[in-house]
Amino acid sequence: MDHTLLETFGNPAEQDYLINIELPEFTALCPITGNPDFATINVSYIPDKFCIELKSIKLFINSYRNDGVFHEAVTNEIFRILSEKLEPKFLRVIGDFSRRGNVKTVVTVKKEYKPFTNVDIPEYIPNEI
Amino acid sequence: MDHTLLETFGNPAEQDYLINIELPEFTALCPITGNPDFATINVSYIPDKFCIELKSIKLFINSYRNDGVFHEAVTNEIFRILSEKLEPKFLRVIGDFSRRGNVKTVVTVKKEYKPFTNVDIPEYIPNEI
Amino acid sequence: MDHTLLETFGNPAEQDYLINIELPEFTALCPITGNPDFATINVSYIPDKFCIELKSIKLFINSYRNDGVFHEAVTNEIFRILSEKLEPKFLRVIGDFSRRGNVKTVVTVKKEYKPFTNVDIPEYIPNEI
Amino acid sequence: MDHTLLETFGNPAEQDYLINIELPEFTALCPITGNPDFATINVSYIPDKFCIELKSIKLFINSYRNDGVFHEAVTNEIFRILSEKLEPKFLRVIGDFSRRGNVKTVVTVKKEYKPFTNVDIPEYIPNEI
Amino acid sequence: MDHTLLETFGNPAEQDYLINIELPEFTALCPITGNPDFATINVSYIPDKFCIELKSIKLFINSYRNDGVFHEAVTNEIFRILSEKLEPKFLRVIGDFSRRGNVKTVVTVKKEYKPFTNVDIPEYIPNEI
Amino acid sequence: MDHTLLETFGNPAEQDYLINIELPEFTALCPITGNPDFATINVSYIPDKFCIELKSIKLFINSYRNDGVFHEAVTNEIFRILSEKLEPKFLRVIGDFSRRGNVKTVVTVKKEYKPFTNVDIPEYIPNEI
Amino acid sequence: MDHTLLETFGNPAEQDYLINIELPEFTALCPITGNPDFATINVSYIPDKFCIELKSIKLFINSYRNDGVFHEAVTNEIFRILSEKLEPKFLRVIGDFSRRGNVKTVVTVKKEYKPFTNVDIPEYIPNEI
Amino acid sequence: MDHTLLETFGNPAEQDYLINIELPEFTALCPITGNPDFATINVSYIPDKFCIELKSIKLFINSYRNDGVFHEAVTNEIFRILSEKLEPKFLRVIGDFSRRGNVKTVVTVKKEYKPFTNVDIPEYIPNEI
Amino acid sequence: MDHTLLETFGNPAEQDYLINIELPEFTALCPITGNPDFATINVSYIPDKFCIELKSIKLFINSYRNDGVFHEAVTNEIFRILSEKLEPKFLRVIGDFSRRGNVKTVVTVKKEYKPFTNVDIPEYIPNEI
Amino acid sequence: MDHTLLETFGNPAEQDYLINIELPEFTALCPITGNPDFATINVSYIPDKFCIELKSIKLFINSYRNDGVFHEAVTNEIFRILSEKLEPKFLRVIGDFSRRGNVKTVVTVKKEYKPFTNVDIPEYIPNEI
Repeated sequence: MDHTLLETFGNPAEQDYLINIELPEFTALCPITGNPDFATINVSYIPDKFCIELKSIKLFINSYRNDGVFHEAVTNEIFRILSEKLEPKFLRVIGDFSRRGNVKTVVTVKKEYKPFTNVDIPEYIPNEI
Repeated sequence: MDHTLLETFGNPAEQDYLINIELPEFTALCPITGNPDFATINVSYIPDKFCIELKSIKLFINSYRNDGVFHEAVTNEIFRILSEKLEPKFLRVIGDFSRRGNVKTVVTVKKEYKPFTNVDIPEYIPNEI
Repeated sequence: MDHTLLETFGNPAEQDYLINIELPEFTALCPITGNPDFATINVSYIPDKFCIELKSIKLFINSYRNDGVFHEAVTNEIFRILSEKLEPKFLRVIGDFSRRGNVKTVVTVKKEYKPFTNVDIPEYIPNEI
Repeated sequence: MDHTLLETFGNPAEQDYLINIELPEFTALCPITGNPDFATINVSYIPDKFCIELKSIKLFINSYRNDGVFHEAVTNEIFRILSEKLEPKFLRVIGDFSRRGNVKTVVTVKKEYKPFTNVDIPEYIPNEI
Repeated sequence: MDHTLLETFGNPAEQDYLINIELPEFTALCPITGNPDFATINVSYIPDKFCIELKSIKLFINSYRNDGVFHEAVTNEIFRILSEKLEPKFLRVIGDFSRRGNVKTVVTVKKEYKPFTNVDIPEYIPNEI
Repeated sequence: MDHTLLETFGNPAEQDYLINIELPEFTALCPITGNPDFATINVSYIPDKFCIELKSIKLFINSYRNDGVFHEAVTNEIFRILSEKLEPKFLRVIGDFSRRGNVKTVVTVKKEYKPFTNVDIPEYIPNEI
Repeated sequence: MDHTLLETFGNPAEQDYLINIELPEFTALCPITGNPDFATINVSYIPDKFCIELKSIKLFINSYRNDGVFHEAVTNEIFRILSEKLEPKFLRVIGDFSRRGNVKTVVTVKKEYKPFTNVDIPEYIPNEI
Repeated sequence: MDHTLLETFGNPAEQDYLINIELPEFTALCPITGNPDFATINVSYIPDKFCIELKSIKLFINSYRNDGVFHEAVTNEIFRILSEKLEPKFLRVIGDFSRRGNVKTVVTVKKEYKPFTNVDIPEYIPNEI
Repeated sequence: MDHTLLETFGNPAEQDYLINIELPEFTALCPITGNPDFATINVSYIPDKFCIELKSIKLFINSYRNDGVFHEAVTNEIFRILSEKLEPKFLRVIGDFSRRGNVKTVVTVKKEYKPFTNVDIPEYIPNEI
Repeated sequence: MDHTLLETFGNPAEQDYLINIELPEFTALCPITGNPDFATINVSYIPDKFCIELKSIKLFINSYRNDGVFHEAVTNEIFRILSEKLEPKFLRVIGDFSRRGNVKTVVTVKKEYKPFTNVDIPEYIPNEI
């Protein structure tokens, strides 16, 4: 993946608030078999100084297309890169992976980096497939 | 937008309670491309002295039709204007924007301005599209 | 409306518990235009000495049919009348009004009157229409 | 009803855990009109020494078939009988009754009898009809 | 069952996070009647040093196919074996069994073994059938 | 059952049209085991001279409560009795029985007795449970 | 009801096409008990020379509010009045009535008055309640 | 499988009608890998002289548990055995198999053996998983 | 609107086939009140020589934004313009308009211009709102 | 794409029947922008001499991953390749593409190559996203 694709812009608000972004078109390769994997990546964050530019996060997600990644590792990696780029007050990244052998995996990583007020984090409902 | 459109009336109750208003027909323009954006604006508040008149909040929402606005900024702006007009005990504004490039964004701004009792704030379930 | 219609019976249990009643056929008139309004009235309460008789609360709700009422005021009024009649430990009344101009309003009034144990109040999911 | 039908077996686990049983085929008679009533009975409990045998709770629920019972009273009665038979750490009984006059009633009785750890009680979603 | 089938790999992340695995194809035999039972097994855990390998947990679940097991006992057994194998910070195992006599049973076992931060455990919604 | 309960009234229209009645509270006994069975009975008909009175068909359905009946036979019997009572142009009766051993049965009987125009018969969607 | 409320305007198209109007807020009184009844009225038609003005059909439906009507008769009556006013090529009127005693009734009246081409009539899916 | 398990009883009706049976608990083994497969088997038939006994068809379906079968072949085999046993006027067997590699397969076999009247065959809606 | 925006490309296939395009973001103004209206425009066609370029039909739909149009007229107009531009073998345009006064309107225009084979036109299911 | 990946096996049945395969993980590149596109490919066919091997059709679909293709063209191409490989009696291929600019496209290609009996082709319901 190419995290230089990620672009930010200045947070237009002073008060704490929540931004949720659903990216249903993540795909990468299984590092063992080379077969493609598919997932919805769901990102929620409370911005501090920066907001993520929507088109750039899409291109960033697209850049995994030909990488070999494990479910648990890649969700943590996306979390870490977004965390470094955004320096948010709060960040949650969910990797909701499509079924393999009719087994479904959902990986959830989140962290509160700085104190915030007036924000609740909504529960995520996984896809059926 | 034209926030002089907003009208209020006196809160008919003494006890704290919650009013939720769903406005599924917000549209504005992207300030960069000029393309139209669409959203559901969901407003929840605990009135203090004033309630918002329903038709006037619809006309207020309609007044964004030809403005160029960003998702994060406009949700915060609607929050701020309603906050100033209503002086509520609690206010939450959610901008649930329609997909762009199959990416979906939901922006949630809320604040407790004054103490209140006997009110829970329900969780919001975003639209599918 | 005619609140003399409301009838109660003695609470058959000693332990605290919750009763939820969904009344999907509320209708009244708009006091300004005279047009009919429609709503689901959802009542939840923890009885103390009295329970509400189901047929009588239906007739009570029916008695608003030709009254002119505002959404916020009538939900608070139904709350107040039930509160006086039932003297419950807890009461919640939700007015889930049908769309006007495709704008949907839900008004929630609740109060804990006396201490209780072993009861949680479930979240209400509004109708689509 | 015939609560001698209820059979238990020894709890096979040492750790606290939750058992949920959905019985969608409760029917009894209205004590005033003699008309049949229908309900789903939903039972959740944390066993202490005993678990309820599944077939026996079904037969117990079936035994109400020709009894005249009120919604509020019968839900409390099922709660009391199960409580005495199981001596659980926690018990919740929900009577989710089918519509009468398009009015829907749900009665929820629960109690924590003994301290427990590592168990959350899930929220119940009533039937539509 | 054959718990030697279970394989683990090293947790690729330092921060606490949640892994959820849905295994909708559990089947075993009733120890009394010999009839087959069916269930979805839902596993959520916060890894400490190890993660469960997805294919191996599927084979482990498959290994119950010809065993005679009770609902309550087998859910606790799967919980215990996974707990010993994974030594997780948190583990929840849900046995969501298919209807017998139109009665549906869901067994939930969970435990917090070590302190963790930044993880919420989502509520489970049982299958309809 | 007691088919003398069925009452009719004169068809108020000259043109052919369709009446659909959903009766979700059928219950009877299994003639072999004596266990209760449950079903939704769905009736569609094109009236000729008579329409069925709604309360009377409910009482008729209720009258099976303590009878021992087989799924296939009772659906055909209800069809035959309604056919004789109504002498309709068209009649369809569907018995949508609740699961037994997680096996679901739906029995559909229909007949066109006399020619009619301007009516289509909608497809029936069975219950989940 | 007051069918003088109905207004039409000239059909703006030459080709045959279908107009479907859903009116979910019909209410009237039971002629026997005086209790209110509720329904969705669903109108589909192929215009010939006239189209129905949307606000006027809503006011027409509202005008039944204090009339005593039977389900079968009133659906046929609305059909007849619309037919006379619109002189359409095709008309279908569905009365989808809310449950009484948990029994649900749907009445469907339709007629092809004049030949038309290039129009299919979609199947109607009744409300749950 | 053991088709001697199948039992029939005499068709209780003279008129043609449809019987639909949903068996959501089919499982067998993949003949190549030995891994278990899962499916819902959906059977619809118009009886001639015989009806299938419900418990026996369940036991028959269960008897595939340790057989190695292909999706296409086993659906045709179940069709053939039921056809020989029932000698129906019409038979449809659908094998709705659970996902493998997130690929879902549904096999539908049907045949009209003898003329019949007054029966429509409803469309089947596959499971999500 | 500006139908010069519409662009086509050569049909890449020789066999008849169906293309369905859902455009959920139509908005225009009511010619009487000036209030905004919203709709999903659903287009299905069998191409002859030309296919519609997806981005151009979106811009064409967007060009109605500040026009005053009636539901019935605008759906017919979009149909006519697409028909002239595409010269298709078959065209269907559905205007699925959002509720006004809780009344919902759906306008369907379709035509078979030239003979085709091997294509069925699927039924359209309107939005809820 | 690499259609040499497709493997077939001999049709195990003599009677005509339908096989439906849902492949929800198609992805390719837009030939103009290079951006990834996503789709569900839904294949229905009546086999003559050959059936498609399930794993091989998945690998075939995967082989489009780095190809630049248009929606209309690629659906027709998959149809053509499957048609040549399978020589079926009937074939339908549906490309159900994910939203672009919130515009959704579904392309349906089907053909009856040889006469068949006893098979109906079910209607396809597109994905929401």
